[in-house]
Amino acid sequence: MPQPDVYERLVSLRRRSATLGSVHRLLNWDQETYMPPAGAAARAEMLSVMAELSHKAATDPRLGDLISRCESDPALTADPVIAADLREMRRDYDLATRLPSELVAELARVASQAQQVWKEARAASNFKMFAPWLDRIMALVRRKAECYGTPPGGELYDALLDEYEPSARSADIEAVFTPLRGRLAGLIGEIAASRKKVSTRILTSKIPADRQHAFGQFVLGAMGFDLKAGRLDVTTHPFCDGLAPGDTRLTTRYRDEKFTDALYGTLHEMGHGLYEQGLPKSKRHGLPSAESISLGIHESQSRMWENFVGRSRSFWTWALPRARKMLGGAMTRATVDQLHAAVNTATPSYIRVEADEATYNLHIMLRFEIERGLISGNLRVRDIPGAWNSNFERLLGIKVPDDRRGCLQDVHWSFGLVGYFATYTLGNLYAAQFWEKINKDIKDLDRRLARGDFAPLKAWLNKHIHAHGRRYRADELCRKITGKALSADPLMRHLEGKLRPLYGI
Amino acid sequence: MPQPDVYERLVSLRRRSATLGSVHRLLNWDQETYMPPAGAAARAEMLSVMAELSHKAATDPRLGDLISRCESDPALTADPVIAADLREMRRDYDLATRLPSELVAELARVASQAQQVWKEARAASNFKMFAPWLDRIMALVRRKAECYGTPPGGELYDALLDEYEPSARSADIEAVFTPLRGRLAGLIGEIAASRKKVSTRILTSKIPADRQHAFGQFVLGAMGFDLKAGRLDVTTHPFCDGLAPGDTRLTTRYRDEKFTDALYGTLHEMGHGLYEQGLPKSKRHGLPSAESISLGIHESQSRMWENFVGRSRSFWTWALPRARKMLGGAMTRATVDQLHAAVNTATPSYIRVEADEATYNLHIMLRFEIERGLISGNLRVRDIPGAWNSNFERLLGIKVPDDRRGCLQDVHWSFGLVGYFATYTLGNLYAAQFWEKINKDIKDLDRRLARGDFAPLKAWLNKHIHAHGRRYRADELCRKITGKALSADPLMRHLEGKLRPLYGI
Repeated sequence: MPQPDVYERLVSLRRRSATLGSVHRLLNWDQETYMPPAGAAARAEMLSVMAELSHKAATDPRLGDLISRCESDPALTADPVIAADLREMRRDYDLATRLPSELVAELARVASQAQQVWKEARAASNFKMFAPWLDRIMALVRRKAECYGTPPGGELYDALLDEYEPSARSADIEAVFTPLRGRLAGLIGEIAASRKKVSTRILTSKIPADRQHAFGQFVLGAMGFDLKAGRLDVTTHPFCDGLAPGDTRLTTRYRDEKFTDALYGTLHEMGHGLYEQGLPKSKRHGLPSAESISLGIHESQSRMWENFVGRSRSFWTWALPRARKMLGGAMTRATVDQLHAAVNTATPSYIRVEADEATYNLHIMLRFEIERGLISGNLRVRDIPGAWNSNFERLLGIKVPDDRRGCLQDVHWSFGLVGYFATYTLGNLYAAQFWEKINKDIKDLDRRLARGDFAPLKAWLNKHIHAHGRRYRADELCRKITGKALSADPLMRHLEGKLRPLYGI
Repeated sequence: MPQPDVYERLVSLRRRSATLGSVHRLLNWDQETYMPPAGAAARAEMLSVMAELSHKAATDPRLGDLISRCESDPALTADPVIAADLREMRRDYDLATRLPSELVAELARVASQAQQVWKEARAASNFKMFAPWLDRIMALVRRKAECYGTPPGGELYDALLDEYEPSARSADIEAVFTPLRGRLAGLIGEIAASRKKVSTRILTSKIPADRQHAFGQFVLGAMGFDLKAGRLDVTTHPFCDGLAPGDTRLTTRYRDEKFTDALYGTLHEMGHGLYEQGLPKSKRHGLPSAESISLGIHESQSRMWENFVGRSRSFWTWALPRARKMLGGAMTRATVDQLHAAVNTATPSYIRVEADEATYNLHIMLRFEIERGLISGNLRVRDIPGAWNSNFERLLGIKVPDDRRGCLQDVHWSFGLVGYFATYTLGNLYAAQFWEKINKDIKDLDRRLARGDFAPLKAWLNKHIHAHGRRYRADELCRKITGKALSADPLMRHLEGKLRPLYGI
């Protein structure tokens, strides 16, 4: 017998839990943007109380009970959207209840100290200072993975991947990463050997932050980011937070002497933001069908707008006349070709977050292998620098000079974030594979972009990706849209098609 | 036998409750400052969940039980600070538990609709549209007063006053308001009859908002507002929120064509802000001894910095050279006398929030009488416009042209805020009475202000007012500081001493 009231109670509990999550997210956003420094201690207390309340809501036994009752109601499970929602609510509830709260608390405590040690170790460029803390973190992370349990047909590390990329398996990822790594390393080698140098001087002319901000806002509006349902602010580390229905916040940072940092940062976060604004939150707030699939799919949206749109020749064809007026400076004499070349250089460098579109993926694959080795036990923490440095040189052809520019550069591990890195490259791969399909569906896309007509692209993403929420898994969505499993080919076609002519190879 | 653990548990429950309050306050602050418009519906849900959690924390029976156990522990009550804290915690708990939650919910629901109706009625300048809603509000507010109960030796209205001004009695307030009203009305009449006109033209020269903002920030810093533990933003209605320890936020609004609006708004909110920053929150967060006494005392702090400091000749002696540089425009040729005169005019006008320092109090007393009549039953809602208009003309000598500029101008009643208005004039009265004592304690205060030495004034307020938190009631504090009960004399001396020479009367 159908029990609509049971389902409604379930929806209302989920919605309440999502609302608590929104509050927590706003506290975080404010901490990064406008909170005065002396408010830090009180803010930590506020965040901790809200985290506790959120966790309590997510593990409320009534929630588990209501999910069970709905799962056994054929009137509900016959609806494919409700069925998918129930499947995802079950997943969330099981994940949340599987971790003992002492483990969560200990991980939070150790991570908060480890972050301090990591900062000092990085400043001193001394991995040995950080190693004992990373050992503790890894032991706790492994315990976490054991609580989740090795997924069927997978390895222990997959339990960690699964948090960020549901149902992903490292063996599948490896099967895509391996050809990508070989072809990318080859391409990078050819570029390094090429005589043609691409100038980036045009990017380093001084442009004041307020002009950059106005231009960024203009581009956001033109691309369809709804500024009545979102905003753009400044933080040290740019991010996007779809913190509540109708409230999606982007941040960027301005460097007077390199305006493309902020511009591409803004486009990147806007890609995330368009996804958040495209989710059916107004009707289904609190339900998985109004939430994003995975970090990889989220990243595919940000990379698409940043790299496939923003670094294209057509983007600059449209943007340059406006940039001349709004940015001034060197823009007044820049050409489309100059800008297109300057924003598409590919050069090996040490720091992941400063890497270009091509070499970036090699940074990721290095981390993926190291993490996998750490969790399987094939690699010990103290052996990280050696493994890092030798693999880095093999992949990127340059020698890591010190730990600061090597294995100490990322904050992730000190937070206990293991299994996260792979999603960055998955995002690039999904973006490329979707992009080929989009160009089949919208035949004149390039010409449209060149005249600033971004609406068909946004509408396509809304319809084929955003509207589904968590109804499909990432790999299912990929097959559904492109007819194929994820592959390295589209991304390599994209990079080679752009970089070979640019470097005359 | 002392039970330190019981006391510690009590402190920790109160602190948690205060932390939830901080979260609620941040949600409000963000709603007024940076929230995108489309986030309003989700924000209402976030606020409502937090209000529910805050109310639950404030009425937690464990809290009541711990208070009782501490009250009967002589080892605790022997400490005067702890004893005062227990007295105030008892007060908070009793007030919070005395209102049935259905009444709170209904008042919130009716108020939210009444605010909409009020907006429409004000736009149409038609009190009759609003009257049925105000009737409902007043019935609920009266029920609220009955739940609190008529305080000993007082009347029903005092139960409402007590929420904002603990232990205040309308009879006592009337005893101060009556002579104030007579003397003020006389002074205003004399000014109206005087031939001397004071020019305000110097204030209406155009000054861009960003210059005003920089000047405002400069003044805040000079006066001792800690901008590392606070900030200044822009909202439609300026306010101050000491939302958490180390986090006090001020807002103002800029009109290019009248820079003193923002300047005095900023000084006003800064007065509140210095009080919040002066409370011993870092040590006693969550305890009454780290909270403000009453709205009247809070307002005394804002009015002191706005009117007693900011409208003084010495303030402009110090500020003008800096204003010349930072504001430019007409400031470059302004004189101290010109500015001092222009910011101290006294002219009857219709709108309370635009009224000057002197006539303002007549606006308040009118509302105080009307509210008191409504709660006692001597005045019916439908008779408000008649009572308003005739009293207004008697007090201020001008005829109210319509409801929009009369009894429909304030938002307070539509919110269910009854008993609040009086605290504005109480603030002016306390400020004046404290100011005389401060000038006795700091002999050369005026000369110090004229050279921008605000530290002794701030230190005095910190020591004699802020440091005590809620240890004393407002009237006790007044006697403790000035040796006398609150009186109309200091405020009248202040106003007459300034306005008589200015208008040559």
